[in-house]
Amino acid sequence: MLSSGKEIAKIVGGKYKGKGIKIKGITDPDNVKPYHIVFIFDFSKFKKIKKLKKAIYVVKVGSKIKGEYNYIIVENPEESFVRFLNYFFPKPVKFKKGISEHAIIGDAELGKNVSIGENVIIRDGVSINSGTVIFPNVYVGFNVTIGKNTIIYPNVSIYDRSILMNNIIIHSGVVIGSDGFGYINKNGRRLKIPQVGRVIIEDDVEIGANTTIDRSTIGETIIRRGTKIDNLVQIAHNVKIGKDTVIVAQAGIAGSVRIGDRVIIAGQAGIADHLNVEDDALILAQSGVMRDVKKGQIIFGYPADERIKTLRFNALITKIPEIIERIKTLEKKR
Amino acid sequence: MLSSGKEIAKIVGGKYKGKGIKIKGITDPDNVKPYHIVFIFDFSKFKKIKKLKKAIYVVKVGSKIKGEYNYIIVENPEESFVRFLNYFFPKPVKFKKGISEHAIIGDAELGKNVSIGENVIIRDGVSINSGTVIFPNVYVGFNVTIGKNTIIYPNVSIYDRSILMNNIIIHSGVVIGSDGFGYINKNGRRLKIPQVGRVIIEDDVEIGANTTIDRSTIGETIIRRGTKIDNLVQIAHNVKIGKDTVIVAQAGIAGSVRIGDRVIIAGQAGIADHLNVEDDALILAQSGVMRDVKKGQIIFGYPADERIKTLRFNALITKIPEIIERIKTLEKKR
Amino acid sequence: MLSSGKEIAKIVGGKYKGKGIKIKGITDPDNVKPYHIVFIFDFSKFKKIKKLKKAIYVVKVGSKIKGEYNYIIVENPEESFVRFLNYFFPKPVKFKKGISEHAIIGDAELGKNVSIGENVIIRDGVSINSGTVIFPNVYVGFNVTIGKNTIIYPNVSIYDRSILMNNIIIHSGVVIGSDGFGYINKNGRRLKIPQVGRVIIEDDVEIGANTTIDRSTIGETIIRRGTKIDNLVQIAHNVKIGKDTVIVAQAGIAGSVRIGDRVIIAGQAGIADHLNVEDDALILAQSGVMRDVKKGQIIFGYPADERIKTLRFNALITKIPEIIERIKTLEKKR
Repeated sequence: MLSSGKEIAKIVGGKYKGKGIKIKGITDPDNVKPYHIVFIFDFSKFKKIKKLKKAIYVVKVGSKIKGEYNYIIVENPEESFVRFLNYFFPKPVKFKKGISEHAIIGDAELGKNVSIGENVIIRDGVSINSGTVIFPNVYVGFNVTIGKNTIIYPNVSIYDRSILMNNIIIHSGVVIGSDGFGYINKNGRRLKIPQVGRVIIEDDVEIGANTTIDRSTIGETIIRRGTKIDNLVQIAHNVKIGKDTVIVAQAGIAGSVRIGDRVIIAGQAGIADHLNVEDDALILAQSGVMRDVKKGQIIFGYPADERIKTLRFNALITKIPEIIERIKTLEKKR
Repeated sequence: MLSSGKEIAKIVGGKYKGKGIKIKGITDPDNVKPYHIVFIFDFSKFKKIKKLKKAIYVVKVGSKIKGEYNYIIVENPEESFVRFLNYFFPKPVKFKKGISEHAIIGDAELGKNVSIGENVIIRDGVSINSGTVIFPNVYVGFNVTIGKNTIIYPNVSIYDRSILMNNIIIHSGVVIGSDGFGYINKNGRRLKIPQVGRVIIEDDVEIGANTTIDRSTIGETIIRRGTKIDNLVQIAHNVKIGKDTVIVAQAGIAGSVRIGDRVIIAGQAGIADHLNVEDDALILAQSGVMRDVKKGQIIFGYPADERIKTLRFNALITKIPEIIERIKTLEKKR
Repeated sequence: MLSSGKEIAKIVGGKYKGKGIKIKGITDPDNVKPYHIVFIFDFSKFKKIKKLKKAIYVVKVGSKIKGEYNYIIVENPEESFVRFLNYFFPKPVKFKKGISEHAIIGDAELGKNVSIGENVIIRDGVSINSGTVIFPNVYVGFNVTIGKNTIIYPNVSIYDRSILMNNIIIHSGVVIGSDGFGYINKNGRRLKIPQVGRVIIEDDVEIGANTTIDRSTIGETIIRRGTKIDNLVQIAHNVKIGKDTVIVAQAGIAGSVRIGDRVIIAGQAGIADHLNVEDDALILAQSGVMRDVKKGQIIFGYPADERIKTLRFNALITKIPEIIERIKTLEKKR
């Protein structure tokens, strides 16, 4: 990468205002260096950032910039950042094209331009559509269906009959379709309930490393279009997750929970089984959710309640020292 | 599956009371469909369920059913559900029989009808007993012993000298026998304590996807007969877990903890090191256990205490507004 | 192992005081057996331990021992324990030496005495230095660099351009360099921010089973020298972790957090994004850290605060019953 401010402005959709310098890299606001570009998402923090005459700053239109430095002025710095990265780092992770001779492929249907890495196992009845990439050491069980342009990183395990649609990204170590955790109690022993359902993952979903998604007892565990799941998340059996929802690392969703669209579940939060979380809810980090969550509610605490109630609840405790003082005064004055 | 109510009644151990219809599938109470069977575990919720003349409902004997619909009446609907699934879906996950030519097997002893998938690595000194199935891409270290009829799903790693007995199920991504997390502090640096023990897993244990079980420093980490462990659970070194215990997803058991029989540890709960949890205890979700738990205790909270105490404790806080009002009244009246 | 007390005293750096017996194994203080050695780290607990004339007890110099039993007296029992284990169990986990013919190795540079297991995939541009051991079924992406004497256990996935230095231990199922979890919100949909950075892991780091370390958006996610990370830990993108820090199982570090040297983060704790945790801080188990932590602070609670404040806060609640009684008395006396 060796580009002028003008060239980059074109790529990121902005206007250049500065001197004719060439950029050789991108850097963080914390770590400004000469001949590097820095994206400023929040201009109010620009004061604290190191200013160099030989750097370029990308800022939102309307920011009160001063002329001494080099700027690219854009509508939306975050979007421009994405455009920049997509242009200059088109493939941050590489793969080997084509079907490896070291892959073991059963009676399966493979679309055009499918790439399958070494030591991948693909069972009978599998269908993989065009442009999909499967990295080495992945297991794809019987009758699994995978759509177009999906990427599956190394060491992923996909159990039988799972359905993955298009433009999905599955990171390393993910397990899809493992048995739901269901037993009946028979005289103190646990008798396994067969888990005969499956997992369906719709278009544009991304699933982080070592996340686990159990198949349902009967019917389906479903992750709908555009939902993004981080690392080490647990999705139990029969769970249904809506569209464009975000689930952050180490959160856990217990069996048969229903989650709506555009919900955000922050890190290490847990949702107890059979609950219903409606659209646009926000569940803050480490919350322990033990009852249904309504549309748009912001939830926090353990046990979790509306954030405002949890904060008020905690604030009540801080009043106790004053309460004791007032009682003492009353007791003395009597 | 195309069976009449009478036939199914025989299979699930019940009596048929209804019309002569043929069933083509099983469904959830949430999703009743014609020509499907529905198991009603809790008859009090039957009112809310969609009723169709062309469905069959399996209900507990003694339920106040009405004659218009088709019923199978059974002693225990949950057990009948298991029977039904076992009969109609005998193998929800398939495997390739026999020893793959793509497996790499050292000087090991293999019993009858053992199946070993492609790219499985089996080291010297390993013994695998009859009927056990090892899926592809599993690593079985030196001198590991595996009993009869055990199933090990893809991408599992089993370190040296681990012992797995009979009828065990190990889901994908599980790690058994990794080093315990032990160091001594030497002038601010961490010096590794060698972890020379091993892991023993007894009969009828099931271990969920991506769960980790560390081997002990010396001696053994033990999971006893019939215990069921969900996904992403951490079992640290030297832990001893009793029989028929249940550990739900993302729970963590720290080093040298002892857990009794028939204990239930709910999701995301944590138990601090060296504690003792006695038989039949119930530790609720997300609890942070920092002291021993007695037989049959129900534990909740962070820090965790008996559930009833934690609830009372939380209830106290809700009294503060009233307390403040009463003080105000007293202050005025003085 | 069949050694006399004198021989063992020499190995562990102590003095023998006892009869001439031969030892055949090591055991826990909980499980003293004849002809076994027991290390007593805390002599105050020696009273409760079973005493046998045919066992040997390793105790700290200055302990008030009685002459009837066999003792080895050492400066530091923990260090002697490590010496003992290193001497008698030099390799608790074995590996096959050399480069397997079943490994698939691209255009890579391999140092002396490197061992690479079966089905390992090594991509172009990889460099692996002398003495490093890679177990079977590991994936090493393009342009990864691995130093000397590093051990990588089975089923690990290392994404492109990661740098691992010397004397590192990576346990099974670890994922290094997976995409950071970053999206921008575009009309309610999530647009992926390309993650073009990488992961750097310095000397002497150990990483537990199934832990995930995301690569940074730009720049680096860094784990510095001597830091030890347990199982199932989440390290998000752009995180910087200092030297000799300890992170216990199932803890989660959110994006762009900076952690100092010699910090201890206990099990299941979570640290919210962009926070700064200074040197020598101690974050207790399950804490939910939502603000910066100063040097040496001890942090506890959810939300987390200084431990002493959280304890005081909780203690306040226990005063409420007494408060209510005092109010009642005041109300009556009026």
